[in-house]
Amino acid sequence: MSVKLSKDDLTPIAGGGLLHRRLFLKGGVVLATAQAIARPLRAEETATAPPPVDPADPPWLHETGGPFTGYGTPSKYEKYVVRNIGGNRTPAGEGVSWTPLQDLEGIVTPSGLHFERHHDGVPAIDPTLHRLVIHGLVRQPLEYTVESLLRYPMRSRFLFIECGGNSNAGWHQEPIQRPVGDFHGLVSCSEWTGVPLSVLLDEAGVDSKASWVIAEGGDAGLLNVSLPLSKLADDAMIALYQNGERVRPENGYPIRLIVPGWEGITNVKWLRRLQVTDQPAMTRNETAKYTELLPSGKARMFTFVMHAKSLITSPSPGQKMYGPNVYEIRGLAWSGRGKIAKVDISADGGHSWAEADLQDPVLSQCFTRFRLPWKWDGQPAILKSRATDESGYVQPERDVLVKERGREGYFHYNAIVSWAIDEDGEITHVYA
Amino acid sequence: MSVKLSKDDLTPIAGGGLLHRRLFLKGGVVLATAQAIARPLRAEETATAPPPVDPADPPWLHETGGPFTGYGTPSKYEKYVVRNIGGNRTPAGEGVSWTPLQDLEGIVTPSGLHFERHHDGVPAIDPTLHRLVIHGLVRQPLEYTVESLLRYPMRSRFLFIECGGNSNAGWHQEPIQRPVGDFHGLVSCSEWTGVPLSVLLDEAGVDSKASWVIAEGGDAGLLNVSLPLSKLADDAMIALYQNGERVRPENGYPIRLIVPGWEGITNVKWLRRLQVTDQPAMTRNETAKYTELLPSGKARMFTFVMHAKSLITSPSPGQKMYGPNVYEIRGLAWSGRGKIAKVDISADGGHSWAEADLQDPVLSQCFTRFRLPWKWDGQPAILKSRATDESGYVQPERDVLVKERGREGYFHYNAIVSWAIDEDGEITHVYA
Repeated sequence: MSVKLSKDDLTPIAGGGLLHRRLFLKGGVVLATAQAIARPLRAEETATAPPPVDPADPPWLHETGGPFTGYGTPSKYEKYVVRNIGGNRTPAGEGVSWTPLQDLEGIVTPSGLHFERHHDGVPAIDPTLHRLVIHGLVRQPLEYTVESLLRYPMRSRFLFIECGGNSNAGWHQEPIQRPVGDFHGLVSCSEWTGVPLSVLLDEAGVDSKASWVIAEGGDAGLLNVSLPLSKLADDAMIALYQNGERVRPENGYPIRLIVPGWEGITNVKWLRRLQVTDQPAMTRNETAKYTELLPSGKARMFTFVMHAKSLITSPSPGQKMYGPNVYEIRGLAWSGRGKIAKVDISADGGHSWAEADLQDPVLSQCFTRFRLPWKWDGQPAILKSRATDESGYVQPERDVLVKERGREGYFHYNAIVSWAIDEDGEITHVYA
Repeated sequence: MSVKLSKDDLTPIAGGGLLHRRLFLKGGVVLATAQAIARPLRAEETATAPPPVDPADPPWLHETGGPFTGYGTPSKYEKYVVRNIGGNRTPAGEGVSWTPLQDLEGIVTPSGLHFERHHDGVPAIDPTLHRLVIHGLVRQPLEYTVESLLRYPMRSRFLFIECGGNSNAGWHQEPIQRPVGDFHGLVSCSEWTGVPLSVLLDEAGVDSKASWVIAEGGDAGLLNVSLPLSKLADDAMIALYQNGERVRPENGYPIRLIVPGWEGITNVKWLRRLQVTDQPAMTRNETAKYTELLPSGKARMFTFVMHAKSLITSPSPGQKMYGPNVYEIRGLAWSGRGKIAKVDISADGGHSWAEADLQDPVLSQCFTRFRLPWKWDGQPAILKSRATDESGYVQPERDVLVKERGREGYFHYNAIVSWAIDEDGEITHVYA
């Protein structure tokens, strides 16, 4: 971009006060506006240097602090930053918990806050008793212990996992009013490390007639899904590690099938079996569920890829505005088809758009954090974000998506999300 | 590289059986050798498909699993993967805890396992009472609440932090025998998100006479260090988030100064004060400590940058070999000067070397994971790894480092590390 920017140039480049994405990098905007945020100290407050510690100071400046710990936890002052649990009653173990996206930053989701979608609870698997079997249309069926899998070559990738049912309140007639994580938080992003599945399939020797694989989890319901062999042989992995440490129980301990960019249910937790076949199994979770009823009365099946999506996490419903000032609009974008190519932001309900800054690293099938400076003048505004991925796919407006898919599809909702900000700074979810 | 590889080519490219770094990517090596790892299933074991769940199977295949949780934790079977605590007795709160690098994979260190180095314990700071003051040679001294800092523009970076005293047992006369994390584990890597310090320094208005900044933490000892203003204005940040969530207490909650690539103590935890000055304070932690006594009797001071370093985490002491077979050599490399350019591996004590595969993404001042296939023939071997960074700096052999620096320097030990493997597969630390 050859845009000439002066440090204090607050000239909007799109409606509603959107500023150039590089402006914060110049370090000037805040200088012009933010002294109302920091408190200027009076001369007598800085007459002594360093500022003294006096008896009125808090106790941690007077007493030796707490001990070392073998495994740390968040501050007690952050105890409200948790997954919001939905369901889990009838039947027990069936439901979801949501990642609080509105409270997080960067692209890594802490493992303790990775969303959950369980159909039969979290099995307490002893790894020494767990086995992975590869059988069916193979030359030699094989059984792997967890210890044996740790000896195979590994790779790590930063990847999002998103439930096919994430954001499905978007199909409702009226816009749901919730914090962004309780509406869109069935998506999280981790560094996964494991054995490329191609290595194990090669070892078993896949028959030339094979075209599908039935993957089965080791929970009591033996959850299973059918997956095209071509995808699994391309980039799937048997993950043993998540964010550096061994995968946690609610994310599949001791091993999880990772299928980059595909809907959450294909990433089978507690993986115990891969049956190589020449046709899908047509079981519950690929017929009655995880399919989408279209206006024609037909249903879409095997809609594996998660299309491009984006969300503004700040400002967002439940947060507050601090009056007219310069803000950083922050959000997340991701696509199952590859890298995010760009994210456009509108502050005037979609009449005009400005391109957001994409934070490095921008990785394929991974969260991308975007940021854009915005000078809010205190007037009503409607914020939107629109992701485009490297395949050229553009996140659709809601009316376009509903026209194409109807409102009974339940799964794979990825329309542009709109937040309305009123003159009091209250933020609500709107269809606009 | 134009090396022609066949899928089953096990011809070494360096002494001791090192194979080409791209060989595992071809998927062939394991096929040739690993059937001794997986268990071939007999025909009668796969006659029924799917394999039946019978009464002898473990309980988690018969009973609904555990409930959803607001904040997850590792499996109870991983309870031995913890930080090993050293010190913490006299005085209380003084010591270290080590990241168990030998148990981890990928490049992210889980926040619960990030190493600790505390001088006065972990203060239990109430974020609503915490303040950051910028004063001294500035136009307008300013005071920031934590809430106000959350409103400034942010950036995220994946960065290692390494204690200046990490690996200092390397100066000992005899090679220490410990798991790699208990020797080299005062280094960890996180995604840090915060406010670029340049933004706040601009806001306060730094005087043209200023050249140093004294950074002070909010623990009872008011730990402080003096840092060149030029570095802080270049790429330092006030971190509010670590691996997606708010920084944890032992890593500086609510705010930590992050100084990319510089020794751990400069990354001041619980940051409360930045005093802009025209000279260093010459306090304890930059005179009596965190300096290195040279053979000449002079001491090096202000040795901020952490030089390039690498470690083989697997195989490593405390782990076991499984007899002659193909192994994946795995390890970590990092440099305070930028990106890792390459890592060379030797299996014959440094006589010959082969280049390891560097796993994407390779980021500046961040852990880089390296991997190399190795065909161990069961004979004694000596493994070494040698990092080169993008500045051209090459990690030195131990005898070169000792010749230059003597053995009384205590800090900044970064020599090549050697593991000896004997014919029984036992792994020990050696100087070789």
